[in-house]
Amino acid sequence: MAKPIYLDYNATTPIDPAVRNAMLPYLEEHFGNPSSGYIYGHRAKEAVEQARAQVAALIGAAPEEIVFTSGGSESDNQAIIGTALANLEKGKKHIITSSIEHPAVLNTCRYLEEKMGFRITYLPVDRYGLVSPEDVKQAITGQTVLITIMHANNEVGTIEPIEEIGRIAREREIPFHTDAAQSCGKLPVKVDNLNVDLLTIAGHKLYAPKGIGALYIRKDVVLDSFIHGAGQEVGKRAGTENVPYMAGLGAACEIAGNSLADYQKNIRQLRDKLHSLIESGLGEDNVRLNGHPERRLPNTLNISLRGVVGEELLAQIPEIAASTGAACHAGSTEPSNVLLAMGLSREWALGALRLTLGRWSTTEEIETAGKLIVEHVR
Amino acid sequence: MAKPIYLDYNATTPIDPAVRNAMLPYLEEHFGNPSSGYIYGHRAKEAVEQARAQVAALIGAAPEEIVFTSGGSESDNQAIIGTALANLEKGKKHIITSSIEHPAVLNTCRYLEEKMGFRITYLPVDRYGLVSPEDVKQAITGQTVLITIMHANNEVGTIEPIEEIGRIAREREIPFHTDAAQSCGKLPVKVDNLNVDLLTIAGHKLYAPKGIGALYIRKDVVLDSFIHGAGQEVGKRAGTENVPYMAGLGAACEIAGNSLADYQKNIRQLRDKLHSLIESGLGEDNVRLNGHPERRLPNTLNISLRGVVGEELLAQIPEIAASTGAACHAGSTEPSNVLLAMGLSREWALGALRLTLGRWSTTEEIETAGKLIVEHVR
Repeated sequence: MAKPIYLDYNATTPIDPAVRNAMLPYLEEHFGNPSSGYIYGHRAKEAVEQARAQVAALIGAAPEEIVFTSGGSESDNQAIIGTALANLEKGKKHIITSSIEHPAVLNTCRYLEEKMGFRITYLPVDRYGLVSPEDVKQAITGQTVLITIMHANNEVGTIEPIEEIGRIAREREIPFHTDAAQSCGKLPVKVDNLNVDLLTIAGHKLYAPKGIGALYIRKDVVLDSFIHGAGQEVGKRAGTENVPYMAGLGAACEIAGNSLADYQKNIRQLRDKLHSLIESGLGEDNVRLNGHPERRLPNTLNISLRGVVGEELLAQIPEIAASTGAACHAGSTEPSNVLLAMGLSREWALGALRLTLGRWSTTEEIETAGKLIVEHVR
Repeated sequence: MAKPIYLDYNATTPIDPAVRNAMLPYLEEHFGNPSSGYIYGHRAKEAVEQARAQVAALIGAAPEEIVFTSGGSESDNQAIIGTALANLEKGKKHIITSSIEHPAVLNTCRYLEEKMGFRITYLPVDRYGLVSPEDVKQAITGQTVLITIMHANNEVGTIEPIEEIGRIAREREIPFHTDAAQSCGKLPVKVDNLNVDLLTIAGHKLYAPKGIGALYIRKDVVLDSFIHGAGQEVGKRAGTENVPYMAGLGAACEIAGNSLADYQKNIRQLRDKLHSLIESGLGEDNVRLNGHPERRLPNTLNISLRGVVGEELLAQIPEIAASTGAACHAGSTEPSNVLLAMGLSREWALGALRLTLGRWSTTEEIETAGKLIVEHVR
């Protein structure tokens, strides 16, 4: 069989060859420990600082506000647990989040709830998956130490009103974290426009490898370090630096920034073409778009097909590599909690397909994929 | 200038070309998310499980007892914080460690002490850097939830009496963690011989990249997960798997296991040759061996030179890439806390050089390095 058509870029992206090339010298001759005081160490240190500047540039931050982590999950954990524990002495124990966050946010909040007696407000979403800024405002109490709402949802692509929530958080002087794992590289993500204090970046969602990420920490925000040890990352994240992957993430951020305008235009067209092909093939009444029709990641098409079980359909089409929701949920016969939170019935939720496009999606692939899906459903 | 002679293998190792080759396919075509239910995902999943078996084999564990992490520091944090928090409900809050642990252990213990009211016993060491098992026994109370003592010290190479401490821990049914970051690949490390329940492995100390590690968790040991999120690593460590580096760590462990006997013999000879060269050049009275003369990592030579400041000496010999202690301490003008804990005077401690050999050290390099050091001190 030829290689399946990859339509699961929200699960993970291939590494861009240019990113790989940026990494290779540090997997080979430049192997030094960045903390070491000789030439091998200096080379490594330079690479780390160049990468930090590249990551910062993508999101409009200062380099010293970027801490490298092992990925989006660690970034989310550090943002949430680090803020929670920094406030432990004050006895303030309330966090506001939404019901459709990534498990790295949801389960971290649950852990603080069960283990440390935190009170967590899980805000509902509307039928499009949108959190209401008014709900955020209402949920704030004198005990609130953090608001954490994702920038764009990984399953349906809905873009949350981060700017507005950020304004509210700032008025009340509450740190605001957003998980931008899915939006970095797909949307303009600028920390000052978004009014955020903490922001999660995940390398493998933007053509860098799995196992690298970053956390933006605004200058004046205080949080405990999460991995304790030696003084790497200015004491904010211990552990010998993963120099090759940091170089890779830096390159990936630079590429993402440079190509964003073109990416957005092209990928939206391709995505909408796929949508039309399926709708015209199956009839509009049999295809339900999940997520916001406009406020949505340009590469993300989440649709429910009437009378279809998504997992079963995909199993019948090995020519397409796609999913029914988050990758971490793959193989599950339970409907997506995100779709249920948006008010979908169990049936519609089980009928979902998440088709997510990326840098190497082609018109030909989209036409073939559309045809295959229509044929198999019929 | 030609490449400096690398004598800092305890700080970090170059990646073995065979390890790099094991990684490359997963940086290229096999990019899938191991959780995904299609071919790209299956390939990635297979690589992860093969690597897990390779890591397990090196330390005599079962594959399901291995959790991949982002490195030694994260492994130490998970072992210590995970155990501490798993016991929070019982109100037991005492941990036993030593005063010469890696900062990833020491600073994690200090964090629990300052933040969560844990009581930490920092055991002293003797002049060779040895912890006394009798001291461990005496320190145990009804509140003790964890004993964490490193296998081999990173600065002086002293090998701690882990088997004996493990026997004591087992008698008292207290979980026992050892940081084996420096010993894996340099000594036989078998969890059943060592009587340990938790064991830290760091990739970049054994010819795998920086940014990958593992934590051995004995089957019946209960600890909280440290990075919360989706269900990767059987729920024990969230975050999309770093497939390339896992494959690399697996290969590195296999190579280390296969080459251990030869490595031990050859590297000890080279190391002792370097020691003799320096001693005969400077006079035995002017060279103090730090660490245990016998119970010591075969690649590690930590010596203090009379009337010399180690940092200054190394700065004068750019032809040698070595350090005066831990890499995370590089550039510091403060003496090593490990050497001070062993009872060295400030002067002897400041005169320390850590010369650590590795897989590609040659007789020629050792002869040149020995000569350079002697010449510059004279």
